[in-house]
Amino acid sequence: MNYDQIFDQAIDRLHTEGRYRVFIDILRNKGAYPNARCFAGHNGPKPITVWCSNDYLAMGQHPKVIEAMEEALHDVGAGSGGTRNIGGNTHYHVDLEGELADLHGKEGALLFTSGYVSNDTTLTTLGKLLPGCVIFSDELNHASMIAGIRNSGCEKRVWRHNDIEHLEELLAAEAPETPKLIAFESVYSMDGDIAPIHAICDLAEKYNALTYIDEVHAVGMYGARGGGISERDDAAHRIDIIEGTLGKAFGVMGGYIAADKRIIDCVRSYAPGFIFTTSLSPVLVAGVLASVRHLKSSSVEREAQQESAAFLKAAMRNAGLPVMDSTTHIVPLMVGDPVRAKKIADILLAEYGVYVQPINYPTVPRGTERLRFTPGPAHTQGMMTELVQALVEIWDRLELELRKAA
Amino acid sequence: MNYDQIFDQAIDRLHTEGRYRVFIDILRNKGAYPNARCFAGHNGPKPITVWCSNDYLAMGQHPKVIEAMEEALHDVGAGSGGTRNIGGNTHYHVDLEGELADLHGKEGALLFTSGYVSNDTTLTTLGKLLPGCVIFSDELNHASMIAGIRNSGCEKRVWRHNDIEHLEELLAAEAPETPKLIAFESVYSMDGDIAPIHAICDLAEKYNALTYIDEVHAVGMYGARGGGISERDDAAHRIDIIEGTLGKAFGVMGGYIAADKRIIDCVRSYAPGFIFTTSLSPVLVAGVLASVRHLKSSSVEREAQQESAAFLKAAMRNAGLPVMDSTTHIVPLMVGDPVRAKKIADILLAEYGVYVQPINYPTVPRGTERLRFTPGPAHTQGMMTELVQALVEIWDRLELELRKAA
Repeated sequence: MNYDQIFDQAIDRLHTEGRYRVFIDILRNKGAYPNARCFAGHNGPKPITVWCSNDYLAMGQHPKVIEAMEEALHDVGAGSGGTRNIGGNTHYHVDLEGELADLHGKEGALLFTSGYVSNDTTLTTLGKLLPGCVIFSDELNHASMIAGIRNSGCEKRVWRHNDIEHLEELLAAEAPETPKLIAFESVYSMDGDIAPIHAICDLAEKYNALTYIDEVHAVGMYGARGGGISERDDAAHRIDIIEGTLGKAFGVMGGYIAADKRIIDCVRSYAPGFIFTTSLSPVLVAGVLASVRHLKSSSVEREAQQESAAFLKAAMRNAGLPVMDSTTHIVPLMVGDPVRAKKIADILLAEYGVYVQPINYPTVPRGTERLRFTPGPAHTQGMMTELVQALVEIWDRLELELRKAA
Repeated sequence: MNYDQIFDQAIDRLHTEGRYRVFIDILRNKGAYPNARCFAGHNGPKPITVWCSNDYLAMGQHPKVIEAMEEALHDVGAGSGGTRNIGGNTHYHVDLEGELADLHGKEGALLFTSGYVSNDTTLTTLGKLLPGCVIFSDELNHASMIAGIRNSGCEKRVWRHNDIEHLEELLAAEAPETPKLIAFESVYSMDGDIAPIHAICDLAEKYNALTYIDEVHAVGMYGARGGGISERDDAAHRIDIIEGTLGKAFGVMGGYIAADKRIIDCVRSYAPGFIFTTSLSPVLVAGVLASVRHLKSSSVEREAQQESAAFLKAAMRNAGLPVMDSTTHIVPLMVGDPVRAKKIADILLAEYGVYVQPINYPTVPRGTERLRFTPGPAHTQGMMTELVQALVEIWDRLELELRKAA
């Protein structure tokens, strides 16, 4: 048994497929984001523009957020020092859970160290509490939901992406008394499309299934108060469990669920990934509190983000670039090959100071490798015009096809 | 199928067993820790002393840590904005991984959002990469290791706590060519005892097994530079993977592994719990960098912690209180019943302003419920003397037995 050889082979496979990942080493410039500094082995950091961040609304540099974090840092210190049950339950945590419950019109909310953990441990726990439960999962669900479903030990039925008829077929095939849970996302982050929430809830009611929605790419950005697509579509009251993140539009770090008191209490009491882990630093929680409260009352950031996304999509389309059909703030540009996607990204970074990460398998299916842009309120039209010019030049240089504009 | 009823029954079971958890709602007073404020439904916060924090060395309020976090907050902002691969790899992360690799004398290190995630996703990933791997697990291993082993899908062999002969029996029963991984902790956090690292490594060499050690209750606190028990016992070079936390002695939040480059690269490239999650906030990472660097060169905190623990253990023993045989900084007081443990903790908090959390199943086996004290450099001898007096008074009031002092 030669362990080294097995590990070497695992790494070689990634090189062979052209999907070995090299992390770009950066520091953002607070107050000037999306500007940042890139450290790449040469002399001194080089200025770049970040186009692939999930700090969608630039709340990570909002003065209210920074101020709240600084205050908490000076009031209570760096870390929580324990699990929620053993010394790590601060008043910030209690307040934020109240704020998030209110955001989604639910009785309660529960914080986790990340969105990944909230999906993984909540789905695992619900699946284990409901004897014989069958979980229905959209085929494009995030890795963290897939992990939670697998770790629950439940039977899984995968329905074709956003295909309501297929979902109904699968639901109808189960016995009426079988516990059922339908798990899906509101905004699918790599394609930028949206789930038909009401249609799914209609089926859930018809077949007596619980509903679980991942709104990580929507909270803060959709709905009058940033409650996500379920708020925008007036569907939050029809969903049993709403899951969100504190690390994207809210600009900090962490994850959560919102649901009725009973479900929150069960997950709180039974989920290993919640119970046995040091709670979020109160410094982070204080920052999120400020961010959530701000975005509940301010729509300026949301509107500016939508304008930026619309502008960039139109500019790409007009230039003949293969921008995908996204109905959201996400702007994916199809390449279809991991080596070429990396090449384009490398040229953008080295020659144009544009940082956009190529998206490869397993994040997207093989053959659909892409560049994914996330313009926000801080990206100017001038930046976007320059970006499109750079892309057209590279498309030309690599002899890639440009579509004729309509 | 009545979902509400099932969830209600799950909660009722906890009430019936006396282990329904109520989180104590507190805020620490930075600079005056272990002092804190407790919010408990009455008018205004009440001053308490925290005796159950895992911020073992009070680094969560160290001026170097606070200053470093404040600087990062003002330089780069609140969150990282992405996964390590997509926009969330900051220069702080790169620096800290170098610092942690150096701390353990390893080629590389890898950061995770928590110690729980580092155990869960590393063990899952290693188990999946090694075909037919059998994992050997100490029976008192932490829930996060148990989760990782289960999620790996590997066969598991549980050996009796710290029983080397039993471990050898189990190792010898497997075929020589079977991949093997031995997973254990250095300091067991609820009993305060220590694993025989060299003896385990001897067996690992004899039977060609990989070794995985969880040092979360040891890093920062043992060894000349805070490298843990594996440093203290000069055994780090014999261990393949050392796992640690940034949320206990280092005072902030997060987890990590240190290992050779090959293993780090494999986990980095294949672990879903690493790949698909927003990276640690740079603010936290900056704080940990300062904390790790400080504790590499300063032993004042470690020595003061050991003195406090020795003082408290002796005082409890002299008073006839049932302090358990801990060889570390952890001071567990056996109660043996969840209802009584909660009662003692409730009196301590309400009447004495002493906050110590009762430890119940599933954190410890049923029938071994206890109070777990973690005195540190900031707990004075005066505080400890008062604590012991309070405990003796409560023991008397509840008609519990005091042992005769030797």
